[in-house]
Amino acid sequence: MSDLRPIGVFDSGIGGLTVVKALRDLLPNENISYLGDTARVPYGPKSAETVQRYAIELAEMLMKQNAKALVVACNTVSSVALPVLTEKFSVPVIGVIEPGACAALAASRNRHIGVIGTRATIRSGAYEKALRAADANVRVSSRACPLLVPLIEEGLLNDEVTDRMILRYLDPLLADDIDTLVLGCTHYPLLTGAIARVLKRQIMIVDSAQNCARAVEEMLDRQSLRAAPLNRGELRVALTDAADSFLNVARDALQLKFGEFELRALP
Amino acid sequence: MSDLRPIGVFDSGIGGLTVVKALRDLLPNENISYLGDTARVPYGPKSAETVQRYAIELAEMLMKQNAKALVVACNTVSSVALPVLTEKFSVPVIGVIEPGACAALAASRNRHIGVIGTRATIRSGAYEKALRAADANVRVSSRACPLLVPLIEEGLLNDEVTDRMILRYLDPLLADDIDTLVLGCTHYPLLTGAIARVLKRQIMIVDSAQNCARAVEEMLDRQSLRAAPLNRGELRVALTDAADSFLNVARDALQLKFGEFELRALP
Repeated sequence: MSDLRPIGVFDSGIGGLTVVKALRDLLPNENISYLGDTARVPYGPKSAETVQRYAIELAEMLMKQNAKALVVACNTVSSVALPVLTEKFSVPVIGVIEPGACAALAASRNRHIGVIGTRATIRSGAYEKALRAADANVRVSSRACPLLVPLIEEGLLNDEVTDRMILRYLDPLLADDIDTLVLGCTHYPLLTGAIARVLKRQIMIVDSAQNCARAVEEMLDRQSLRAAPLNRGELRVALTDAADSFLNVARDALQLKFGEFELRALP
Repeated sequence: MSDLRPIGVFDSGIGGLTVVKALRDLLPNENISYLGDTARVPYGPKSAETVQRYAIELAEMLMKQNAKALVVACNTVSSVALPVLTEKFSVPVIGVIEPGACAALAASRNRHIGVIGTRATIRSGAYEKALRAADANVRVSSRACPLLVPLIEEGLLNDEVTDRMILRYLDPLLADDIDTLVLGCTHYPLLTGAIARVLKRQIMIVDSAQNCARAVEEMLDRQSLRAAPLNRGELRVALTDAADSFLNVARDALQLKFGEFELRALP
């Protein structure tokens, strides 16, 4: 059995390419179709209803490409639209939040977990809910870090201004004695190096992109949806509007190979 | 004669409220209808075609409210959509770029003018074109400052991280010996204090919001469109999606009074 249909991955913009990178590393045989809604990025400040409507439109565009699974490579969409997507589409739908929460619980020793993300993700309480659903005794300290995405998009991945903002955001979590930190935004894996450098003491960093990729792998195995081991997986990247410089930042930092992106019109 | 129809002001989001503030101060008798496209903010990274389409939609929504003039309180829209708006609508259309450019030329002594703005505004070269059209001998040094908007939206108006970024962005312009700096983004008037503090030597700061308001005043006089001096102007604020915390930052920093904003659906 070899299922060569693509895995459809979507995000509000380009940040979801960190999930694509994790998928490429873990599942090199799989074809991947990425769709980033650069025409309407960012979703964070938008209402839940608007985000759900946009998410359904993107998922439908990927389903027209015969996707065998949908990966929501966006914390905002995962936190507000996963139930409606699961209900509406017949293929498996995997988000970034539950895999990240499970990995954090496996990593933490003192059961005190920190979560950072955009304001929308933190306000949704989605990681907190997922963590508590799995372990009622876990303690969670959350913090919105709204300036990290713009700093990342500007390519300031190793920069004193970024380091200062990271420290300012993380200080209260460290004071709370967390031993594990969930990067609850698909942009943040690009700051793993900076965060590890700034956090001088030992903290487990949980990258939700990597854990999402592992969840996709398990799901493909469970449902016998894997491509053949000899298939050389292809990556296609489509965007709904022109890309800004962040596409180059992400491509370089992730060492992700793909040709020109396709421009795809929204319905 | 008293023309009580509102002045329709629109922006991709909330930044245009700096123009509203300047209009309120200068023209307290005028009714103002503000429309911010928070559902699709920011316009900066979007293509010119997309920005033009969105601008026409917003202008049509304001024309349904019987606007007597359209004020484009957004540098991105002003730089790519002013001709198409002027052609399509019969009422006067005023942007922020030409008024800012004229004021800079009036202020500069050494004919060397600095312009800062978002990446889209700087890339468009709109200020440079407007400056050169008025004075072929002017020298222009431009710099995109993409992190200033997120810093402002986070309310870090008096903060060492913001000061550092301002210095980093302005250093090359100062080295170029500009004597006048155009704030080519409607968010930036909120940083006037910080910029003046950081620039230790004397530089004229040209606020395009204030100059846009003066251009509106002149146009109303020229076309006999003023409201009666006794009219107490009202301000209505409508947004196309939920506002984020920046609405409160702007309202507080600008000391702008209005009731609840209205939520208005896009066509």
